Amino acid sequence: MQTTFEIVTRGAGLYEFTRDVAAWVTGTGLLTLMIRHTSASLLIQGNADPGVQTDLMAYFQRLVPPSDHPSMAYLTHTQEGPDDMPAHIKAALLPVSLQIPVQDGRMRLGTWQGIYLFEHRKAPHIRQVAAHLSQG
Amino acid sequence: MQTTFEIVTRGAGLYEFTRDVAAWVTGTGLLTLMIRHTSASLLIQGNADPGVQTDLMAYFQRLVPPSDHPSMAYLTHTQEGPDDMPAHIKAALLPVSLQIPVQDGRMRLGTWQGIYLFEHRKAPHIRQVAAHLSQG
Amino acid sequence: MQTTFEIVTRGAGLYEFTRDVAAWVTGTGLLTLMIRHTSASLLIQGNADPGVQTDLMAYFQRLVPPSDHPSMAYLTHTQEGPDDMPAHIKAALLPVSLQIPVQDGRMRLGTWQGIYLFEHRKAPHIRQVAAHLSQG
Repeated sequence: MQTTFEIVTRGAGLYEFTRDVAAWVTGTGLLTLMIRHTSASLLIQGNADPGVQTDLMAYFQRLVPPSDHPSMAYLTHTQEGPDDMPAHIKAALLPVSLQIPVQDGRMRLGTWQGIYLFEHRKAPHIRQVAAHLSQG
Repeated sequence: MQTTFEIVTRGAGLYEFTRDVAAWVTGTGLLTLMIRHTSASLLIQGNADPGVQTDLMAYFQRLVPPSDHPSMAYLTHTQEGPDDMPAHIKAALLPVSLQIPVQDGRMRLGTWQGIYLFEHRKAPHIRQVAAHLSQG
Repeated sequence: MQTTFEIVTRGAGLYEFTRDVAAWVTGTGLLTLMIRHTSASLLIQGNADPGVQTDLMAYFQRLVPPSDHPSMAYLTHTQEGPDDMPAHIKAALLPVSLQIPVQDGRMRLGTWQGIYLFEHRKAPHIRQVAAHLSQG
């Protein structure tokens, strides 16, 4: 059982889509989500305090500064703008895919776990997430 | 086939539970482990020299300092203590889930690979790891 | 359905093996790749501009300097050379396993996504990647 989720992004940030996934899963088995891009990531993170998402954004902006920042002068892949290569680096550091056991139609996420798409580019994008659900 | 492993932690550090998982897997298929928390991680790492674990701890403490460290003054999610938001950041950087092929009742881990829970919080916790084993 | 891919490395760097995997997958299901080592990683990354790979290498060399660099003086696991413990740290930061949905014999990768082995050691190695393909 496979599908594709499309997530519309309006610049860098975390976009929760837990409800879309929850509405799709069924039965008992294993859910896999895989992002089909190299400049955005998937993430399971805390969905109680929005400050967690703000702080994650801020941390990764500092860990991987734009390529026009003096500390990043060694980067060569800069043609598509200062947020391009840092987006690839963040996409290497953060998950490309997520796996979540499913039981009786419900994902076995913890109480505070939500599913996010982490957009690393400034420009708006339509992002595709391939989904696979095995039964058993 | 699903179960839940519970790992009791006594502060930040790596806790190996390879043997518990090895005792549970059977047949031939795919094992998935997923941690049901956003302030601890799963990790496959070297289990020969304990220095590897000490050094991993030390590195991640420096990469993500406590929120009362001057370099982290921009963080906002600080109500639950200086180790709270750094724990979320480490949980974003390190695996939420692990997948290991299983053959004839044995995980196909390399000689030096062990399965760890990486606790990021200072206080003791009981951590739940959801496990799924598909056959075939 | 399981197999093992062997990738020969000639020092630190990214080695693409997308074609080997594409030639092996068949039917519709879920592909899992898992590296059987703790000093090399798997990675899905952009395969259009080779500059992306050069820059990823350069970034991770700076994020995790060799253990004889003054900033890494706290490391203890240094017996096997200055690139040993940094290799373990990079192997913790980057994926041990990859999951890719497969449909009608083709991996559902995005247009620019390639599958890489990321070698973190200087010396040549033969690296094993365990592969599992479930149908359905």
